[in-house]
Amino acid sequence: MNSRVQNEYLKSKVMSAEKACELIPNGASVGFSGFVGAGCALALPQALAQRATALHEKGEPYQIEIFTGASTDPLLDGVLAKAGAVSFRAPFFTDTDMRRAINSGAVRYADVHLSSLAAQLKAGFFPHLNFAVIEVVAIKESGELVPSTSLGNNQAWLDIADRVILEVNYYQPLELEGIHDVTDLRLPPHAEDLPIKHVGDRVGSPYMHVDPAKVVAVIEARTHDRVNNFTAVDEISSAIGRNVVKFLKNEEACGRLPAKKLLPLQSGIGNVANAVLSSLQDAGYQGLQCYSEVIQDGMLDLIKRGVVGTASATALSLSPAGVEEFQKNIDFYRKHIILRSQDVSNSPALIRRLGVVSMNGMLEADIYGNVNSTNVMGSQMKNGIGGSGDFARNGYLSLFLSPSLAKDGAISAIVPFVSHVDHTEHDTQVIITEYGIADLRGKCPRERARAMISIAHPIYQDALRDYFERACAQPCAGHTPHILSEALSWHQRFKDTGSMKA
Amino acid sequence: MNSRVQNEYLKSKVMSAEKACELIPNGASVGFSGFVGAGCALALPQALAQRATALHEKGEPYQIEIFTGASTDPLLDGVLAKAGAVSFRAPFFTDTDMRRAINSGAVRYADVHLSSLAAQLKAGFFPHLNFAVIEVVAIKESGELVPSTSLGNNQAWLDIADRVILEVNYYQPLELEGIHDVTDLRLPPHAEDLPIKHVGDRVGSPYMHVDPAKVVAVIEARTHDRVNNFTAVDEISSAIGRNVVKFLKNEEACGRLPAKKLLPLQSGIGNVANAVLSSLQDAGYQGLQCYSEVIQDGMLDLIKRGVVGTASATALSLSPAGVEEFQKNIDFYRKHIILRSQDVSNSPALIRRLGVVSMNGMLEADIYGNVNSTNVMGSQMKNGIGGSGDFARNGYLSLFLSPSLAKDGAISAIVPFVSHVDHTEHDTQVIITEYGIADLRGKCPRERARAMISIAHPIYQDALRDYFERACAQPCAGHTPHILSEALSWHQRFKDTGSMKA
Repeated sequence: MNSRVQNEYLKSKVMSAEKACELIPNGASVGFSGFVGAGCALALPQALAQRATALHEKGEPYQIEIFTGASTDPLLDGVLAKAGAVSFRAPFFTDTDMRRAINSGAVRYADVHLSSLAAQLKAGFFPHLNFAVIEVVAIKESGELVPSTSLGNNQAWLDIADRVILEVNYYQPLELEGIHDVTDLRLPPHAEDLPIKHVGDRVGSPYMHVDPAKVVAVIEARTHDRVNNFTAVDEISSAIGRNVVKFLKNEEACGRLPAKKLLPLQSGIGNVANAVLSSLQDAGYQGLQCYSEVIQDGMLDLIKRGVVGTASATALSLSPAGVEEFQKNIDFYRKHIILRSQDVSNSPALIRRLGVVSMNGMLEADIYGNVNSTNVMGSQMKNGIGGSGDFARNGYLSLFLSPSLAKDGAISAIVPFVSHVDHTEHDTQVIITEYGIADLRGKCPRERARAMISIAHPIYQDALRDYFERACAQPCAGHTPHILSEALSWHQRFKDTGSMKA
Repeated sequence: MNSRVQNEYLKSKVMSAEKACELIPNGASVGFSGFVGAGCALALPQALAQRATALHEKGEPYQIEIFTGASTDPLLDGVLAKAGAVSFRAPFFTDTDMRRAINSGAVRYADVHLSSLAAQLKAGFFPHLNFAVIEVVAIKESGELVPSTSLGNNQAWLDIADRVILEVNYYQPLELEGIHDVTDLRLPPHAEDLPIKHVGDRVGSPYMHVDPAKVVAVIEARTHDRVNNFTAVDEISSAIGRNVVKFLKNEEACGRLPAKKLLPLQSGIGNVANAVLSSLQDAGYQGLQCYSEVIQDGMLDLIKRGVVGTASATALSLSPAGVEEFQKNIDFYRKHIILRSQDVSNSPALIRRLGVVSMNGMLEADIYGNVNSTNVMGSQMKNGIGGSGDFARNGYLSLFLSPSLAKDGAISAIVPFVSHVDHTEHDTQVIITEYGIADLRGKCPRERARAMISIAHPIYQDALRDYFERACAQPCAGHTPHILSEALSWHQRFKDTGSMKA
């Protein structure tokens, strides 16, 4: 193959993943590339996991601290967690083995807004980063780096880390060059406004930069992004998607959103998000803007159909078929897609200025509109808060979407009192299930409760109403009526009996 | 007295408060000026309350919806609440009668971030504003308005409301002219960055503007701002203040804050905030910047001593002695003080860019660092979230300060599980009591718990440790160990026995 390492000095640093991983000592803190499985360096972590296992078998300790953009891949989080090679993890994951390690207490995990982690590391609020391990598509003769399918925190890790390992992934299309907008993250008192006024504005460079003297290894690899194969949109997701469109249409009709154009949309990933995009297409929208975290196959399709005009994100998470389509029509897509650092894709200031309509999933919400996105039954970490707080707090409109039931009806998504709060009543505006729309804007808690109960699944509505009415009937019920001795009883019952049903 | 109403057309609208209040019909929504008791129109509300009482005695309904900057005055919130003349209230209050009405369910109250209320009204997320009732110091010949001691949401209310009533307060010093920086609040897709790079930057006008055709009445009044007389700094507050300085000094020593200059400070009001300012002075700081909500007498003193160089806020809350000092040295103070609209003083984008070090009080925090600022025992509304969320989420550093005990020891400020969440674990970084500093940055929940327990009052530490250890010892304790059946038992015990002590 033609070498993608064009810089002479960095060419001298090419070595195997096995050799490179020996440079990383026990106890090191490492910033990896990777966001929603896109753009992860995968060769080095696998070699690291093997090395850790070998050392552990000899009775020697070997663990590292892992920082990323967001979730990565079983071949990064998974193999390292299984090898017992991780002592600390931030800020987000979806891997099953990593989840098990975190919930067992074996891995310390810090759950941080995706917009903020890099700034907090730069500020020195976390341990100093010893290594950055960053996937790139190519290294230019000048030493500039062509980023891969995610930007995430890459440039920040390159800036902060003492030493850098680059993984050049020959699987990723060279045509990615030019799609990124790499910006520098500056802290106060030197922070500056990024003059982004429209979703597609470019204000940075297409390349990442690194001090070559810090690069201790360059690995040449050929690894695939892992792509979640989401199941087809089901009936419940479709009903939620239709409710979202119904809500947006009504906002337009009332003059609260610009007619036909809406405002830039953010939506998460998964069935419900896909159903929403599909409903927007069915509703005849054209030329929508997306200011979000991830672009998936479905978004390419919407761009091709003109439903979406411009999409900004920090990661491009495509299936092999999506990669093929992307390469075939690269000149077209480069006009419509822009990949940014996650401190920009998730920037509170920009989300506010652009007026993003934020749509996120949730684990559960309570009758007063507090939302739990992270801790199942108050204790078991699912994936982390991710970017939901960045978008929900700062969005022009903030929607949370969820099926009304989980676990075949054993869990109600609407409960008396959430077992963990990630989004407070001050930040949640509209909550939507397949049963309807709870518009909480401008409402006091008692009014919120009635709206929330109305979107719960019918099998739980009576019990919610009973709780709320008895809470209100207490002497000194107060502004936010609760029966403290029963507030968490639904969760306790689920733990005791396997169901929230009485 | 010389007339302060210089505009000929508006002069024709001068009438008594009694006559003006008849213009406001039952059911109207009214935006009043007023922030922390500063700059409230007080003549009209008193007349309104009398009118409401008279109508109620005749069996006729009379209630209005009240929007403000923040808390007002007993002669606004208090008299109207007592008269049963309020159906709805947002976004913040401190008045006892208003609190009683809200907690009884008689007044619907929406608890909104102070930065966001005006934007949400402009966007149409609340009922349309029928009236704005705004205190001014004078009306210029051109019709421009010289703002009073708070800007709050005044310009937004003047922009949105169908009709406007101006209250010209002859008590307030004319020397206030020139101290304000009035800006326009624009919504997406027309929102723009405010080019404020330093605490003292002026980017707007010294005057508020209003369409004269909307002005239906001008009232001439002479009313005093109500000023809380805070008790002298006590020993516990002093200890907290010293811990804050200890923390800041260590941040400087570790290079996480600029040496000797820190970054712009935000602090609330009350004993603890006063103690912090006093400790900063004792520590020899000079030329500090403040980017906050309120300036009080103590701040004038710090400015005079050079401890504070520039102070930006939305309200100037001075005692009569403070007003005298301010008037005597107006040219000096105008160089050091700037009053902004609250969407600017509390702007998430600006708080981030400037790198504000945020310090707020709290009702309680739990062992994992979630903070309750609003609902006592989960249900009784205290004052509202105010600006604490704007600053805590967006500050470069976010500190929460509290005495470890309340109610003579019957309440612990550190509990197993907070009964309401206003600030999540994702947003709280450092929590300080008189017993020490819990630095939660970069920590996982189990580490957070140990730090939080260490700053609880010694009489509650054993019980907290016992809860935490038993929670961790459960099978499947998870990432955030809790015993759901006991999580809220401390609050229940307080309700049952009057004390959280076992």
